[in-house]
Amino acid sequence: MTELQIKGKKAKETAIFLRKASSDKKNKVLIRAAALLLEKQADIIASNKIDLKNAADNGITGPLLDRLVLNKTRIEGMAEGLKEIAALADPVGEVLQMEKRPNGLIIGKQRVPIGVIGIIFESRPNVTVDAFGLCLKTGNASILRGGKEAIKTNLTLGKILQQALLENNFPAEAVQVIEDTSRDSARALMKLNEYLDLLIPRGGAGLIRSVVENSTVPVIETGVGNCHIYVDSSANLEKAAAICINAKTQRPGVCNAAESLVIHTDIAEQFIPLICEQLQAKNVEIRGDETVVNYFPEAKKATEEDWGTEYLDLIISMKVINSLDEAINHIGKYSTKHSESIITENYTNAQRFLNEVDSAAVYVNASTRFTDGYEFGFGAEIGISTQKLHARGPMGLKELTSTKYIIYGDGQIRE
Amino acid sequence: MTELQIKGKKAKETAIFLRKASSDKKNKVLIRAAALLLEKQADIIASNKIDLKNAADNGITGPLLDRLVLNKTRIEGMAEGLKEIAALADPVGEVLQMEKRPNGLIIGKQRVPIGVIGIIFESRPNVTVDAFGLCLKTGNASILRGGKEAIKTNLTLGKILQQALLENNFPAEAVQVIEDTSRDSARALMKLNEYLDLLIPRGGAGLIRSVVENSTVPVIETGVGNCHIYVDSSANLEKAAAICINAKTQRPGVCNAAESLVIHTDIAEQFIPLICEQLQAKNVEIRGDETVVNYFPEAKKATEEDWGTEYLDLIISMKVINSLDEAINHIGKYSTKHSESIITENYTNAQRFLNEVDSAAVYVNASTRFTDGYEFGFGAEIGISTQKLHARGPMGLKELTSTKYIIYGDGQIRE
Repeated sequence: MTELQIKGKKAKETAIFLRKASSDKKNKVLIRAAALLLEKQADIIASNKIDLKNAADNGITGPLLDRLVLNKTRIEGMAEGLKEIAALADPVGEVLQMEKRPNGLIIGKQRVPIGVIGIIFESRPNVTVDAFGLCLKTGNASILRGGKEAIKTNLTLGKILQQALLENNFPAEAVQVIEDTSRDSARALMKLNEYLDLLIPRGGAGLIRSVVENSTVPVIETGVGNCHIYVDSSANLEKAAAICINAKTQRPGVCNAAESLVIHTDIAEQFIPLICEQLQAKNVEIRGDETVVNYFPEAKKATEEDWGTEYLDLIISMKVINSLDEAINHIGKYSTKHSESIITENYTNAQRFLNEVDSAAVYVNASTRFTDGYEFGFGAEIGISTQKLHARGPMGLKELTSTKYIIYGDGQIRE
Repeated sequence: MTELQIKGKKAKETAIFLRKASSDKKNKVLIRAAALLLEKQADIIASNKIDLKNAADNGITGPLLDRLVLNKTRIEGMAEGLKEIAALADPVGEVLQMEKRPNGLIIGKQRVPIGVIGIIFESRPNVTVDAFGLCLKTGNASILRGGKEAIKTNLTLGKILQQALLENNFPAEAVQVIEDTSRDSARALMKLNEYLDLLIPRGGAGLIRSVVENSTVPVIETGVGNCHIYVDSSANLEKAAAICINAKTQRPGVCNAAESLVIHTDIAEQFIPLICEQLQAKNVEIRGDETVVNYFPEAKKATEEDWGTEYLDLIISMKVINSLDEAINHIGKYSTKHSESIITENYTNAQRFLNEVDSAAVYVNASTRFTDGYEFGFGAEIGISTQKLHARGPMGLKELTSTKYIIYGDGQIRE
């Protein structure tokens, strides 16, 4: 058996234990893990220094290097995150509906853990703690395969989390960090159907595409967001500008940031100079179609590629259209189906946009930046699903559960 | 572009139309399709005769040949099925929850179609009509790849369904039957991620395994049922016998039929002769462990393979265990996680069985034969999911939908 098969088998055995674990006991593990992260800060930072040195030796710098860093503040943040998860309601066991059938059978639909969840992620080591917390709370065993840049840190974090499990009489294999960070180990994880119930990729577009294209284990596709804001002819332009600036600049590196503005021709002459000046003041590079360049000559000319690009940066594409239909078609063609917003005062256009745009989150008169488990009131999130099966949009604890039917009979047989 | 890519592209375009189609209009298509099936009976039967002749020439006989047959009664049954689907409530558009957040955003979760659904099935041509009806009602475009034995019949049915669509100003591509029934076309469908949102295999264990192992399109695994009935020490033995006989013999060829009895040692001496005589009277072959053979010498000795076998026939395996734990472990090891039932008068054992058995449907004191969309009150079903993502257990119309978040704002930006 390979490392992965052994870990898979152990995870599957552990899932039986976790399925039966009470909320109280799971919470004790989470709270102990939070305390241990603080107690063992020195160990974490020492491992992290090795990763950082290796990364620097390999030429990693700037924001990419920064993502790897764990310091006192970030470790405290991870510990706080675990305590917050402990404080949330446990969705496992909840009965969603219960109905009495004409034959007297009482049929209920109950939330249960999914089983074994694999997570493939890139450089941020905090995902180790975060994913462990969300999976444990929902009674799932987790197998974590992080990037090679953070492997020392991830293994140290894994050991600390396993200590918290063992101290509370849980099997250590409730969380397992894969040591082999080769491309082969990722590929093997994508084919581990025998042991894995679900695989979640967390990271950039390349990683997610690779997992979706190669995995035979069920996948939830997360994160890529080429989000649009459509400014309708009837928009309140002040509101529109404030929303566009917020959606583009408040945190440009995240998936729910806006990447493209679609503007109705009737307001183009008035709105384009207004919004472009405000964007420029925030150092945003503008790539527009001919009309945009016409009304704001400092804008660059957009290429076909721009319409489909998630910049994750202070760059925005901008297109002028002649009708709501054209806006909806443009969004349908280029969007990654994450979040889109219409800015309008027109009732019918608002309703049509909500109905006809096929994205995980569709807004009227609000910033796309709200697509987020915390903002939606879930208390935590494992990612934002941009696929249509199982979960769509922000995924909180409930989205990490499955259901089963429980049926109470008194001797019923089928005629 | 291949036949499949062309069909995929057209289906994706059609999905935009279907997403907006009202329930009234979709129902008109269904009702017209039901009428056309009756009007064009002669065409259907003529195509079916060609398939039947080819099948007979290829040595297909008995129940396998019977599955291919469409006669007047079966065509009427298909038409009736479409009318029943038309009469059901349309789940599309339903808002599942709507909440006002502290910042004033109103966030709703709305049911929407999934998009494009592929269905791979074996010989029964009625699946063409059935799948079309369920997918159209839920606003999904369908691409159907049936077995080569029924291809003439399937193509004729497809044309009739397309006529009903066109007469009602729907795009014909809302349902498309794949002409190429080679293994390659099935493989290509499993990789059609660009156009397919979901792939559902309907058929035997081999087909389902092949789809699960090879598909990169999201799959819902349906159907295989190695269902167990556990007769506890406290069971009412008369009730137990009636349930066992019903679950095994009422319709042995279906996935929710019982395949294995697990019997507590305390009642073995009394229950085994009783149930074995009743099973024998129904021509059921019994394959038991040593204890079973001891109490009922006419039983065959079961092999390790028997515990994991879905017979779909008048055969049953039978094992004696010493405790509820042992029963739950045995079921966990060999079950396909479809349906299991405990027969008991003991409250704690009933609750433990419901909580600890990890199957799509878990029963107390009832026959496993009830795991079915009609029996659960869904009115129709596309199959029974034995996986944990998206849908588990009988899948009705709701399970053929996704959700999206719709958010009503009045200028909210994120701080």
